[in-house]
Amino acid sequence: MYTYSVTGSYTDLYELVMAQAYFLENRHSVPAVFDYFFRKLPYDGGYVIFAGLHELMEILENWTFSDTDIEFLEAQLHLHPAFLDYLRQFHFTGDLYACREGEVVFPYEPVVRVEAPILEAQILETLLLNILNFQSLIATKAARIRYVSGEKSLSEFGFRRAQGLAGLMTARAAVIGGFQSTSNVYAGERYGIPVVGTMAHAFVQSYASELEAFRAFARHHPQGCIFLVDTYDTLHSGIPNAITVAKEMEQEGKRALGIRLDSGDLAYLSRRARALLDEAGLSYMKIAVSNQLDEYLIRSLHEQGAPIDIFGVGTKLAIGHPDAVLDGVYKLCEIHETPTIKLSESLTKMNLPGKKQVFRMLHADGSFLGADVIAGITENEHELMVMYHPFEPGKFKKIKGYPREPLLLPMMKHGKRISPAPSLNEIAAYARQRLQQLPPEYKRFEFPHVYKVGLSEKLLHLRDQLRSQYQLSWSNHDT
Amino acid sequence: MYTYSVTGSYTDLYELVMAQAYFLENRHSVPAVFDYFFRKLPYDGGYVIFAGLHELMEILENWTFSDTDIEFLEAQLHLHPAFLDYLRQFHFTGDLYACREGEVVFPYEPVVRVEAPILEAQILETLLLNILNFQSLIATKAARIRYVSGEKSLSEFGFRRAQGLAGLMTARAAVIGGFQSTSNVYAGERYGIPVVGTMAHAFVQSYASELEAFRAFARHHPQGCIFLVDTYDTLHSGIPNAITVAKEMEQEGKRALGIRLDSGDLAYLSRRARALLDEAGLSYMKIAVSNQLDEYLIRSLHEQGAPIDIFGVGTKLAIGHPDAVLDGVYKLCEIHETPTIKLSESLTKMNLPGKKQVFRMLHADGSFLGADVIAGITENEHELMVMYHPFEPGKFKKIKGYPREPLLLPMMKHGKRISPAPSLNEIAAYARQRLQQLPPEYKRFEFPHVYKVGLSEKLLHLRDQLRSQYQLSWSNHDT
Repeated sequence: MYTYSVTGSYTDLYELVMAQAYFLENRHSVPAVFDYFFRKLPYDGGYVIFAGLHELMEILENWTFSDTDIEFLEAQLHLHPAFLDYLRQFHFTGDLYACREGEVVFPYEPVVRVEAPILEAQILETLLLNILNFQSLIATKAARIRYVSGEKSLSEFGFRRAQGLAGLMTARAAVIGGFQSTSNVYAGERYGIPVVGTMAHAFVQSYASELEAFRAFARHHPQGCIFLVDTYDTLHSGIPNAITVAKEMEQEGKRALGIRLDSGDLAYLSRRARALLDEAGLSYMKIAVSNQLDEYLIRSLHEQGAPIDIFGVGTKLAIGHPDAVLDGVYKLCEIHETPTIKLSESLTKMNLPGKKQVFRMLHADGSFLGADVIAGITENEHELMVMYHPFEPGKFKKIKGYPREPLLLPMMKHGKRISPAPSLNEIAAYARQRLQQLPPEYKRFEFPHVYKVGLSEKLLHLRDQLRSQYQLSWSNHDT
Repeated sequence: MYTYSVTGSYTDLYELVMAQAYFLENRHSVPAVFDYFFRKLPYDGGYVIFAGLHELMEILENWTFSDTDIEFLEAQLHLHPAFLDYLRQFHFTGDLYACREGEVVFPYEPVVRVEAPILEAQILETLLLNILNFQSLIATKAARIRYVSGEKSLSEFGFRRAQGLAGLMTARAAVIGGFQSTSNVYAGERYGIPVVGTMAHAFVQSYASELEAFRAFARHHPQGCIFLVDTYDTLHSGIPNAITVAKEMEQEGKRALGIRLDSGDLAYLSRRARALLDEAGLSYMKIAVSNQLDEYLIRSLHEQGAPIDIFGVGTKLAIGHPDAVLDGVYKLCEIHETPTIKLSESLTKMNLPGKKQVFRMLHADGSFLGADVIAGITENEHELMVMYHPFEPGKFKKIKGYPREPLLLPMMKHGKRISPAPSLNEIAAYARQRLQQLPPEYKRFEFPHVYKVGLSEKLLHLRDQLRSQYQLSWSNHDT
């Protein structure tokens, strides 16, 4: 069997190289805190749906170095024998705080906080980024597609154009964003996602005639009979043949499910198809469409009143078109109980020091005010009266009197999950609920409202103080 | 251990649904032929590097349905018991012809041809597309980056921003396109790719001072010492501290490898860094850079004469920015020894009927003429005098007298590979050689020359004849 394992080697080498130095310096147990956050919203959109957390935690609970890993690190990378002994026993013992999977999150706010001995916290960086960046990217795309699809059925069809093995996680993240099903059998097997699928053009071609192909299919799949009608000519061959076979099925007491359109003008063809099916007394037959769909095309079909029931969304969902990447990073914010920052020429590339909490402000009706404030972990949430723009000194917003909720919750303690994982449907339901709390102006595609993320006064001062400390030491160096 | 398995379930459900119909109709052994080809060149470029073949074939040789698969297909998808029995015994028994991995290939020409019983040929569609589309996309991006990088060292750094598990295959494909190394430990372990890596900003931050951090690192990694110099201030802190520690290393008879720049103006900073290192007598220290690199940025750095030795290319390589997808498809072209086509409103979306060979025309010096001709498998290559434009009737090109070579070679017979797999380095060497044979006008980034892919006269006639047959039958249907 051909398998890929997520073990200790699922990392960038520099994580291990640094880990070895920590170990050999006997600093590997120094307590450290890292934040995961991103800086840029994908799709020129207004939010991100945070996804991948529970898969990451499941991996982390079982993340060890295999014998193969150790052999490779020894023979090929010549790591130190004492360090290899350490890796043989390695497992993650740290704590992890995070937003709930499915949360609506925004740039610059910590979405995950890892508290662990520095060696452990460091070497999970690549793994954490790899899983969370991708699944959040796809869940967000899926949520945008759901946003314009109302209650229509949405199915993920992207496996063949997915980036290799990524196709599996695509299906998981798509469900979190609001999809019901996938074409990907492995995703069904692994995550319990409903799997759907009917026929390809090759099936139709493989018979002497389209009619014969549809009849053969109907004989063996009465319960899932969706006819692909565009192999030869949609209106003059595919739909008439589908109607013929659907009527034959009726005589046997069966019902065809519908037809699928995979090319041509989907608005026009779906209207014509609907009319032909209705005229034939087959108004129960549904119309499914596929072919280069995304949120813009689906919105356009909706605006044109196309009578489509099921959308199969492939490539553009699977790769998170056009961004294809979420720029999440993982930065050290505290070492040995001392807050730390990485400086940069640009203020926007600096990280925020120390352990932090994020509070979301709410309206009385539970909808989001549009303001999250990042504060030091020891700050009293009730004393947060004002939040400050993180990069534009002097800009602030009053937040006194609004109900608020903390977003970072304890998820892992001593390397183990605190509570059983929610089901994928529960995660999806949470995302749906949170998106309902998010006002529409943040969800529109064109120039969405910018959700405000600010700093508490204390955090702002801590950051600026650390910044000037370091700036002072550069000046010393200059002399 | 957390593993992902590529078994029979690594497919879209419709492949199995169709397969079940074939099986229950007792048509599953009907011989079928499928072509893999793509229609659009990524990156507005002039070619594609074909990659993923040997990984695909290794998977195919071991591609079976696991007990977990069968259980799932039975309990959740309710497949027919007789068909499940068949799947329990399933393995691929077909033949596979393909261009050599690393070949330079062009739109519309068959790159892989699968000849197998229709059920087998059908259900490997998703797997084949998933592996070949992605690796070809990335190998092509890597080749473009290599094209502007001369003999500089290129390292793949994209794991953290890769699309989940795809990061593994990214590293493999990057080597085929011309990279030397990767940061991805798993890729090193699995594919034997050299792995590189030094330190992150967090390492520097975790020490009381940058100087102390560099010293600690040098103590334990004298042989791989590349100092990351932009945590606080590149010119006033990072480089001076790197120089201090490198000079200390010299006193112990050791040599630092170099420095890495990860932010700021890389052209300016690399020149300043080079000058500072040279002044300090450290001209052996190399300059590595990373941060949002791609072929355009590297070309620009080259034009500015930036004295950079090593490029670490991450996100934009790992996701194949900006396309993120190769649109390869897999189409039935022959069934029961009868050529077949899928029609379409657009001629460009039709496939080519029957078993085919692709001949590449050469100049006498071995360089590519810029013309590939697709012909029926039984045609005599020496009789191919003219090739025809596939979509513009009347356009043709004389090819008489040019040496020619067939591109599709037998790779698998009865489900087993015919020859041992070449090493990754051999595949990369082949890609390099073929790119050398490709004239520069096809390799430039701006409006590259369009490589001509044409049809033999017989193939053109066969396609047009099949097309009019089907068109006739639509007219019948209309009445």
